[in-house]
Amino acid sequence: MQKPREYFAGRYDVVVIGAGHSGCEAALAPARMGMKTLMLTMSLDSVALMPCNPSIGGTGKGHLVREIDALGGQMGLAIDKAMIQSRMLNTSKGPAVHSLRAQADKKKYQTIMKQILEDEENLDLVQGEAVDILTENGKITGVLTKTGARYDTKSVIIATGTYLKGRIYIGEFNYEGGPSGLFPSNDLSQSLKRLGIKLKRFKTGTPARVHKDSIDYSKTEVQPGDEEIVPFSFLNDKINIDQVPCYLTYTTEETHEIIKSNLDRSPMYAGEMESVGPRYCPSIEDKIVRFADKNRHQIFIEPEGLDTKEMYVQGMSTTLPEEVQIKMYRSIPGLENVKIMRSAYAIEYDCIDPTQLKRSLEIKNVENLFFAGQVNGTSGYEEAAAQGIIAGINAVLKLRGEESFILDRSEAYIGVLIDDLVTKGTNEPYRMMTSRAEYRLILRQDNADLRLTEKSYKIGLASKERYEKVKYKKEQIEKELKRLKNIVVTPKKEVREFLESLNSSPIKAPTSLFNLIKRPELSYDSLKDLDKDRPDLPREIRMQVEIQIKYDGYIKKQLKQIEQFKKMENKKLPKDIDYDAIKGLRLEARQKLNDIKPDSVGQASRISGVSPADINVLLVYLEQQKRLKNRSDNND
Amino acid sequence: MQKPREYFAGRYDVVVIGAGHSGCEAALAPARMGMKTLMLTMSLDSVALMPCNPSIGGTGKGHLVREIDALGGQMGLAIDKAMIQSRMLNTSKGPAVHSLRAQADKKKYQTIMKQILEDEENLDLVQGEAVDILTENGKITGVLTKTGARYDTKSVIIATGTYLKGRIYIGEFNYEGGPSGLFPSNDLSQSLKRLGIKLKRFKTGTPARVHKDSIDYSKTEVQPGDEEIVPFSFLNDKINIDQVPCYLTYTTEETHEIIKSNLDRSPMYAGEMESVGPRYCPSIEDKIVRFADKNRHQIFIEPEGLDTKEMYVQGMSTTLPEEVQIKMYRSIPGLENVKIMRSAYAIEYDCIDPTQLKRSLEIKNVENLFFAGQVNGTSGYEEAAAQGIIAGINAVLKLRGEESFILDRSEAYIGVLIDDLVTKGTNEPYRMMTSRAEYRLILRQDNADLRLTEKSYKIGLASKERYEKVKYKKEQIEKELKRLKNIVVTPKKEVREFLESLNSSPIKAPTSLFNLIKRPELSYDSLKDLDKDRPDLPREIRMQVEIQIKYDGYIKKQLKQIEQFKKMENKKLPKDIDYDAIKGLRLEARQKLNDIKPDSVGQASRISGVSPADINVLLVYLEQQKRLKNRSDNND
Ligand SMILES: Cc1cc2nc3c(=O)[nH]c(=O)nc-3n(C[C@H](O)[C@H](O)[C@H](O)COP(=O)(O)OP(=O)(O)OC[C@H]3O[C@@H](n4cnc5c(N)ncnc54)[C@H](O)[C@@H]3O)c2cc1C
Ligand SMILES: Cc1cc2nc3c(=O)[nH]c(=O)nc-3n(C[C@H](O)[C@H](O)[C@H](O)COP(=O)(O)OP(=O)(O)OC[C@H]3O[C@@H](n4cnc5c(N)ncnc54)[C@H](O)[C@@H]3O)c2cc1C
Repeated sequence: MQKPREYFAGRYDVVVIGAGHSGCEAALAPARMGMKTLMLTMSLDSVALMPCNPSIGGTGKGHLVREIDALGGQMGLAIDKAMIQSRMLNTSKGPAVHSLRAQADKKKYQTIMKQILEDEENLDLVQGEAVDILTENGKITGVLTKTGARYDTKSVIIATGTYLKGRIYIGEFNYEGGPSGLFPSNDLSQSLKRLGIKLKRFKTGTPARVHKDSIDYSKTEVQPGDEEIVPFSFLNDKINIDQVPCYLTYTTEETHEIIKSNLDRSPMYAGEMESVGPRYCPSIEDKIVRFADKNRHQIFIEPEGLDTKEMYVQGMSTTLPEEVQIKMYRSIPGLENVKIMRSAYAIEYDCIDPTQLKRSLEIKNVENLFFAGQVNGTSGYEEAAAQGIIAGINAVLKLRGEESFILDRSEAYIGVLIDDLVTKGTNEPYRMMTSRAEYRLILRQDNADLRLTEKSYKIGLASKERYEKVKYKKEQIEKELKRLKNIVVTPKKEVREFLESLNSSPIKAPTSLFNLIKRPELSYDSLKDLDKDRPDLPREIRMQVEIQIKYDGYIKKQLKQIEQFKKMENKKLPKDIDYDAIKGLRLEARQKLNDIKPDSVGQASRISGVSPADINVLLVYLEQQKRLKNRSDNND
Repeated sequence: MQKPREYFAGRYDVVVIGAGHSGCEAALAPARMGMKTLMLTMSLDSVALMPCNPSIGGTGKGHLVREIDALGGQMGLAIDKAMIQSRMLNTSKGPAVHSLRAQADKKKYQTIMKQILEDEENLDLVQGEAVDILTENGKITGVLTKTGARYDTKSVIIATGTYLKGRIYIGEFNYEGGPSGLFPSNDLSQSLKRLGIKLKRFKTGTPARVHKDSIDYSKTEVQPGDEEIVPFSFLNDKINIDQVPCYLTYTTEETHEIIKSNLDRSPMYAGEMESVGPRYCPSIEDKIVRFADKNRHQIFIEPEGLDTKEMYVQGMSTTLPEEVQIKMYRSIPGLENVKIMRSAYAIEYDCIDPTQLKRSLEIKNVENLFFAGQVNGTSGYEEAAAQGIIAGINAVLKLRGEESFILDRSEAYIGVLIDDLVTKGTNEPYRMMTSRAEYRLILRQDNADLRLTEKSYKIGLASKERYEKVKYKKEQIEKELKRLKNIVVTPKKEVREFLESLNSSPIKAPTSLFNLIKRPELSYDSLKDLDKDRPDLPREIRMQVEIQIKYDGYIKKQLKQIEQFKKMENKKLPKDIDYDAIKGLRLEARQKLNDIKPDSVGQASRISGVSPADINVLLVYLEQQKRLKNRSDNND
């Protein structure tokens, strides 16, 4: 690269590199917290680009979006405006795994998010490619762009997604490139290496986009949206739109045959591509190899927006060559004559090993340098955004000299996500799933506001409006729970008959409505007629009341477990411990502990290679230290 | 470049390479004329991209858009939907130079145009980069893409704009790139060279985009739109929108100082950039060097769309480095604290020498290979689109074995544009201006439909609806003109008084209304009260009637000139003339004539280097040939 002539271009508190889903939250949070913030992007036309699926949310991911919203982030508000279909997934299962998912009008989503960024007073949005991170004595001082602009700054958040040394793969063919025909970012990796940061190489893929009018819908199953839309944002009470449908079809034996006989033309299978792809968003050839006994896979056809006839073919991501793509797509019912408008491709990129990060998402070896999003080894818009808001908040708190904002595994999916990344690392693009969370019944999507908004309000991010709304909601719920405990019905005739009419056995002693609602066959709403003075409460309050009553026992149990968990999380491990000096720790544990530098014994226990015996050694060590300290305090 | 494995991807009548303004028209015309058409673009997200000014039309350019529309093209309809402000320019001058210009919402324009393309039945829109034009025996057979797709086709239209070996310049810094952060097209140039096509290197530049809220509008003059909007498309009768304003400000002595003292940092002035830029869209440093005595230049600030705060700074295109850009922008009243969101840059690209083209826009040495747009050495969206529709039409006519569709200089600005290009060539990006047209009074923007729609309808492009509308309009105009000739007013008292009230001298003899309207102080509308039986005609008919009456004398004179012009245009020069064999032609003329192979003596007379004496030689030669032919015919 030609060396540009450097010039001073401005002074900021925080510079965010990247305007993807992660960068957007990472920039809005500091700006809203009063910091002078700069956002750099390779292209102003790709702000909040969705380079893959035209949807936000889904199992586990929906939880993340609700949590981002509860914290005062933008993703939920944006998708509420840009959605063209909405569904609450897993409603046949318990409330812990209910997950929201909405189809997005991609361009509209981008437009909305860009407008929000442009409107933000403390935020400057600039097209430019960061090529160098400037430091002095291991501390951030600035950022240099390709065209020579030097921005002096106290803090940097890197949110470069899949752009770093991006390389596109389509069959035997590959070339340098970012997503969606955009430029890759080729210089920044080198700068990170110079800072001593370890890079990895991951990959991800996207299916073809096909022309709407080239599909025979009679061979597919229509997938409509929900009748009533639950908004993503806790600030929105209602969304009224005309929803558009998606369509379901399946791969066939023929599809599988075509893929199998062309596997040698996939760069992954031909050994040309060594990076690791996401196990939970596999390419169709991966699915066919890994699940050889399955004779068909679901394929969803989803619109890319209202103003375009491009359709996304979910489930058909591939690195096979175009020639094979056409054949395999056309072997699917409904797609016999399909016209491909953009081919499927995979992208390979540099990301960092996230175990180099603290839980605040600051990197351990450079002060005030934060990382967020796909560059940390994750996959997905929601995972990216979740990290973005946390990095944004922590960049500010660090500058303020305040304690980091850490959500632990019992408080939020975001906590699970970040703890997994920084404690365990990841060998493939990490994707959120409800099964990753231990305390699912507490971390529901419906109560994200109750869990998180106050925390965010206290550090100055969530707005007063948001906070007041949650406070009021909490009060209403508690008031209603209390009321229901106090209303006791007696086993008189009309009560007996009423319960009978609901196929519920009669009560023998006076019983509170609270306890009655616990019966599986009854619900808060169904007992309305027994409850003459019931106030008229909105849906989300009634739902909270019902869940808290019905799952009362389980919730209490889980809260107990959390107490246990917190005990270990509260056993803090000072950053300056020299694990080599602790006798009794196994060698592997010493190395890992020195690497990760966990915040607590709890975190230490989740590091792979640290055994329960090692944890006991640590607990004994902490006990000794405490005694030593007490003694010296007493001697003072 | 890695060689992809080739595969057969489909068979088409016409393949259009490029989805810019030129490619859009070049693809729609054949598709609408029933040809199976493929459109390839580097990125489906950049269809109909406006990489520079957020407006369509303007002096001379507005005429082109009206003509494209009259022929059944899309640009006029698209801008009518995407406009956010409209003005008829030059209304203080005669109707010949009235020109329409509209501010566009850029993203909306793109969305609208992409939708039209997606909806077109005979058109397939595919993201892919053409890297090779395939021929057999000097005739088109196919196109090969970067990923190995081979499309067999009878005809190819190249509309690659500024992408071929694109290189971006910002001050001392430059790199390979297409417009707006997109990839350049690096391989196709080589393929064109292999076909024996001569390439040139041109450049063009664009100003910075700045943040709307960083401007002090109190120091600028507001530029509102017209009260009544004249639509671009003859199919639209009325447009009702809330218009947004633009703002006018000026450069200062300080601006000029900053530029002068940094000229050595401009790659053009430092000699790093040897390509030629558009004289009529000069960079600000060009303006300051060339018009050293002017102490200020107009700067218009124009919105890029309704959904963004990016503003375009017309008049401030530059290749100076970012550092200097910031200083010079901030030296302009209103922009003291301006925030630049995207920097100004210049782009250098390969284009062809257009004298290699026939007037049909087919290249002379490869059958069925057409070129359109900026790749032909022009500049501007409208110039590009104008060539696109003509190339599209002629690709079809050629396949049908019919005569080319040629508009001559007396029929359309499009004719002037193409005749200039192929006859004279161009040493800089060619831009349309009204002064380029000899028969301006005939080639008005208001009568483009009357001039062109029937021609297009006859070859199967303009729709029946369009044709019927024009036919009806023509009839109405003629009927009204006839009626006005027949209504004769006598010098009676009330007439005298009426004329007096309009400050017009009394008539002495019976006079037709037709003749009265000719008086400068009177108009068609002002004579309404003398004309009891006047039918209620729409605005555009009344305007035609008025213009045709008022300019009757001039129009007649210009029609006479056109007759003369046509005489020379009709003296056809056969393609197989060997000019070396014509005695009396000067050497330079022989070479030029052999190169250009003009269609007619008229065209020959416009070739630079062909003198009036040479033309006389040609006329004598043609006379001789005719006599020889007659003689041999008589002898048969
Ligand atoms: C082909 C493909 C397939 C995918 N498949 C899936 C999938 O199946 N499932 C799924 O959940 N997710 C998928 N994703 C991932 C998803 O798109 C990302 O997780 C998400 O977009 C990441 O967000 P981000 O903000 O981290 O980065 P991105 O959205 O990639 O944004 C990165 C931003 O950084 C900017 N940038 C980069 N380098 C620089 C620099 N040097 N200077 C300035 N700016 C810079 C870019 O301009 C951009 O604005 C896929 C992505 C791609 C490209
Ligand atoms: C920086 C800049 C400044 C400009 N300044 C001005 C100005 O001041 N005034 C003015 O009037 N005009 C200006 N223009 C020019 C104006 O943008 C162009 O004239 C107009 O866009 C040209 O239209 P086009 O259709 O010929 O090409 P473009 O709009 O450039 O479109 C070219 C198309 O070809 C495609 N393409 C290219 N190569 C390939 C390939 N190998 N395979 C497949 N597809 C391919 C691209 O994807 C694109 O869709 C400027 C343009 C730029 C980039």
